[in-house]
Amino acid sequence: MKAAYYSGNQTFSVEVDSPKEPEAGEVRLKIGYCGICGTDMHVYHGAMDARVTTHRVIGHECSAVVDKVGEGVIGFSKGDPVVVRPLSSCGTCAACQKGHSHVCQNLKFLGLDTEGAMQEMWTVPAHTLHALPSDLRLDYAALIEPTAVACHDVARAKIQPGEDVLVIGGGPIGLLVAMVAREAGGQVVVSEVSDYRLKVAQELGFVTLDPREVNVAEEMWKRTGDKGAEVVFEVSGSAPGIETMTEAAAVRGRIVMVAIFSQKPEVDMFAFFWRELELLGARVYEAADYDRAIELILSGAIDCGALITDVRELDDILSAFQALDGNATAMKSLIKCS
Amino acid sequence: MKAAYYSGNQTFSVEVDSPKEPEAGEVRLKIGYCGICGTDMHVYHGAMDARVTTHRVIGHECSAVVDKVGEGVIGFSKGDPVVVRPLSSCGTCAACQKGHSHVCQNLKFLGLDTEGAMQEMWTVPAHTLHALPSDLRLDYAALIEPTAVACHDVARAKIQPGEDVLVIGGGPIGLLVAMVAREAGGQVVVSEVSDYRLKVAQELGFVTLDPREVNVAEEMWKRTGDKGAEVVFEVSGSAPGIETMTEAAAVRGRIVMVAIFSQKPEVDMFAFFWRELELLGARVYEAADYDRAIELILSGAIDCGALITDVRELDDILSAFQALDGNATAMKSLIKCS
Repeated sequence: MKAAYYSGNQTFSVEVDSPKEPEAGEVRLKIGYCGICGTDMHVYHGAMDARVTTHRVIGHECSAVVDKVGEGVIGFSKGDPVVVRPLSSCGTCAACQKGHSHVCQNLKFLGLDTEGAMQEMWTVPAHTLHALPSDLRLDYAALIEPTAVACHDVARAKIQPGEDVLVIGGGPIGLLVAMVAREAGGQVVVSEVSDYRLKVAQELGFVTLDPREVNVAEEMWKRTGDKGAEVVFEVSGSAPGIETMTEAAAVRGRIVMVAIFSQKPEVDMFAFFWRELELLGARVYEAADYDRAIELILSGAIDCGALITDVRELDDILSAFQALDGNATAMKSLIKCS
Repeated sequence: MKAAYYSGNQTFSVEVDSPKEPEAGEVRLKIGYCGICGTDMHVYHGAMDARVTTHRVIGHECSAVVDKVGEGVIGFSKGDPVVVRPLSSCGTCAACQKGHSHVCQNLKFLGLDTEGAMQEMWTVPAHTLHALPSDLRLDYAALIEPTAVACHDVARAKIQPGEDVLVIGGGPIGLLVAMVAREAGGQVVVSEVSDYRLKVAQELGFVTLDPREVNVAEEMWKRTGDKGAEVVFEVSGSAPGIETMTEAAAVRGRIVMVAIFSQKPEVDMFAFFWRELELLGARVYEAADYDRAIELILSGAIDCGALITDVRELDDILSAFQALDGNATAMKSLIKCS
């Protein structure tokens, strides 16, 4: 079988491996599709070599069918369509003990800390699997993982029907958050600076604001009758996004920190005090977020067709990363792994 | 009657005024004591002239007895001991409509936006009053307002019994937060850099950490068996405090922003993402916070005697502010107003 190894700064080597036999409690999967995540792009650029090494099969946004089950695995059989929740927690740390195993203090992320999905066959612990309905397209199913991220973000925000929601950043995660928030009853506005992404957001039915043209926060206060946004998702990872998130939030507004900041931005702590704002960090997902993501993709509430802009073969993985790199006219690229 | 007017940079003029007749819905109070708040110190330094003007009776941490009730006021009679919750909300903004009138978008704060308590007689809306038990000392009762701040901060944190709590900053508000958090069942540690304040915190029974000697966050992780602090109160208003608050917090830890930052500090947004931290802004108080503060001061859970370090006459108001200014060996100074 073929496996695509990240092999140092902006390179991959597609190698021929023997499929790994599933041990007790493991399942071997035949991978259908695997999406390229922002994190994978970071790996591609060499920014995470210390963590992932320079000989690693990456990828974690996959759909698959079961190929072989290891000893003691129940509930899955050869041919079953599945997705992987790529988290391995220790079970013993304080976070796990409190039921927050998705943010385990010793969490291993499959496809970064272990080999991942960008190969024909992937062997994973059975507890990471979620069964799929048989009528769900496998290419669409590759969006379940990022949709589960969005479901987790929205769950953290506890959106109430009718609340005004601002999503800052209209990339793949931003638009998934927007779609999930809309399903939760939010009145969603998307702020974005790319013409292409603005167009996609509009085609998905969202009101958009372009910070190059308007003051997004002022516009939100105007649009909401001097109330502000009850919920803000900061997905842009930018300094202007950090400014806007506090400025746009209503009194007692909840701001969900979805973006990953490697530097420490300047944050308006006075606004947190003055309007009693809340900031909620959100990372990965829990089992219920996967269940919800599957439901939303199956129902069509998540428009996967609009988000999947590129599909390439495993052999062409390098060109897929190159095409996505800095490309303002792409959303989600999938690798067809088998 | 005498009234002490803030009259521009570090000056007061004590003037003789006629007591204001209470209009319908108002009550005239004979002020017992009025504490000097950090905000009053800002006014004294001229930092809030645009808001308070340079001819204003300031002060809002007062105890009093009712002197005269205006038309239509029920529930209060001459001689009743009371405290004032010095907030006037508009009732019509989005925040008020949602029941968050204490953070009304048009909130007026009595003693900053209106005349305040540092005078012999003060006339206020009846709805701002809380009745006091007759056996509560009026000097101690002047600590009800700052204690209500602490009660609100602790309520925002939703402390569960046994949770590890770090209070960053051991001034008057920090120590009140520490005492209220202890009453809520928290295992409280106080971080402070002043020898004097460390000593007071220790005398109040708190474990203390001195950032000049130890890494406070590391120490919290050690002390809690690699769990971190479930709740952190940032009361220091300092850049090191902002660093420590994210470093010390457990997975899913709640950080309450009590301090008022006029500049935007650099904040570790990655930590919010990684450990799913929550930041909760907290401002002033609600009626229930006053009820709780009265209860805690009456029960002795708040050691008012340890916090009140100076009491001066209204005529000596300038010397009281001068004595407090930059003084590392004072906690709470009271003005005896009548």
